[in-house]
Amino acid sequence: MILTVTLNTALDLTYRVPALLPHASHRVTQVIERPGGKGLNVARVLGALGHETVVTGFTGGATGETVRGLLAATTAGLPGRVHDALVPIAGATRRTVAVVDAASGDTTQLNEPGPAISPAEWAAFTARFTRLLDGARAVALCGSLPPGIHVGAYAELVRLARAAGVPALLDTSGEPLRRGIAARPELIKPNAAELAQLTGSREPYRATRDARRRGAHAVVTSLGPDGLLAATPDGLWQAAPPAPVKGNPTGAGDSAVAALLAGLVDGTDWPTRLSHAVALSAATVLSPVAGEFDESAYESLLPRITVHDRAAA
Amino acid sequence: MILTVTLNTALDLTYRVPALLPHASHRVTQVIERPGGKGLNVARVLGALGHETVVTGFTGGATGETVRGLLAATTAGLPGRVHDALVPIAGATRRTVAVVDAASGDTTQLNEPGPAISPAEWAAFTARFTRLLDGARAVALCGSLPPGIHVGAYAELVRLARAAGVPALLDTSGEPLRRGIAARPELIKPNAAELAQLTGSREPYRATRDARRRGAHAVVTSLGPDGLLAATPDGLWQAAPPAPVKGNPTGAGDSAVAALLAGLVDGTDWPTRLSHAVALSAATVLSPVAGEFDESAYESLLPRITVHDRAAA
Repeated sequence: MILTVTLNTALDLTYRVPALLPHASHRVTQVIERPGGKGLNVARVLGALGHETVVTGFTGGATGETVRGLLAATTAGLPGRVHDALVPIAGATRRTVAVVDAASGDTTQLNEPGPAISPAEWAAFTARFTRLLDGARAVALCGSLPPGIHVGAYAELVRLARAAGVPALLDTSGEPLRRGIAARPELIKPNAAELAQLTGSREPYRATRDARRRGAHAVVTSLGPDGLLAATPDGLWQAAPPAPVKGNPTGAGDSAVAALLAGLVDGTDWPTRLSHAVALSAATVLSPVAGEFDESAYESLLPRITVHDRAAA
Repeated sequence: MILTVTLNTALDLTYRVPALLPHASHRVTQVIERPGGKGLNVARVLGALGHETVVTGFTGGATGETVRGLLAATTAGLPGRVHDALVPIAGATRRTVAVVDAASGDTTQLNEPGPAISPAEWAAFTARFTRLLDGARAVALCGSLPPGIHVGAYAELVRLARAAGVPALLDTSGEPLRRGIAARPELIKPNAAELAQLTGSREPYRATRDARRRGAHAVVTSLGPDGLLAATPDGLWQAAPPAPVKGNPTGAGDSAVAALLAGLVDGTDWPTRLSHAVALSAATVLSPVAGEFDESAYESLLPRITVHDRAAA
């Protein structure tokens, strides 16, 4: 099975309003509730691809119960089973609110900070994580750290995974990413902004190679609509869709992470992995439901992804 | 005891952000959760004033459980006990989100519509309401109707209260208010905008007397910072604070309703009732916590409220 970790899960709310006007009162015309947090999204996509997946991280309070119920409901019947191994905490899982203007489609995002995690809760989590590594073929460490967890938390989890011989994909930003890379994860998947913050360089090729020198075995950088750039022990590639796709980019990065994990456990070569990641990411942008992917778009896009060997260029 | 009815209860969330910018992403710096809905606020103030109160209406889902927990927590230890007689429903209680700009203090409000109520749930409620009327000295019918309830619902509840000999205060707006008045409630408490919508007149004296002719035994109109205007069988009065107060007006109208109910069951004369209502309302505006009232402000304001006999003017 594949393990995904989400330390700061969320109840994701999407509110549709005719138009958001600061300091006015709005009647919300549509409310959508989704289980939130990058690792939960990755697990749902892995389940849809047929991979058995275990979800861990923290949930608590009434919002946490709602997230667990929604996770079960949105993964029931997928070809790959998704198991809930979330660790209970005293605090309440946070909410995020995306306010969508019906007219323009523009989104205003409000993110609660999340509950503080106690040292005892962190210890309970690392014990659970260590047990779950026994049986995992890969692990994804996803998203921001909730309050109360030390900034080297992802570095600690990467070391535990390496000790257990389980390859770790790290998808975070800022100081947790910087510390995490130094613990030598199998793969990191920054976007251009996260990479620039890490390396100080806005030139993607230079920054991607620089990030790899900092300790990651491989670096796959998201270039948004232009696809992915990968610096790996086997070479340097850029994979791109036939044309940029238009739609809702929510969850596109999580779909890329799921495809990269699937390629890792299936042992496919890098060009194949990257093709799947770009096609799945584009098929997620094209889906009318945020965070889901359009299966027929995925299948039709897959043979049309171009992969260039940048080292040869 | 005094009974309060809230058909569309809510989990009220207050989000503090540095500044709300449409189409940007915001980290919420403070989250406050409160039990919401006018009748719940009225009950909390009545409890603080020493009146035993029963809360009914609908709650459901995880948000409903949170609302019930917060209602118990915020009314525990009050001099008047507040009892929870909320009726469970299949749908989930709505949320409201107030986004407060830390710099300006301005608020942007997002209100979920609320769950649809089935005919069986409405029947269960009216049965519970009828039982609760036996023992009630007054009843307050507060706020908007959730989806699925017929527009004459408040008129139906006013008639049930009259049949049981319990005076009913109706605090709603639009068509439910128009229908409700025709069933001859003891008291309505519109604000100037609600009254203008009902009567077509923006002139408060004319509109207040007009509303009374439509069937309400008495009409108390909120004039905002200028106090209250009352048309009653005993006369016409205006009560005003010594000076307009500045602060957070959230819940000020609910505090006025609580004071009017307390005056009704205590049998005080209209000028006394109006003085208490204006003082309690102003003390709510002055409280740092939205919906609470400042007890010392209430006591110091009470002797300074002016009540003018408008019929004599």
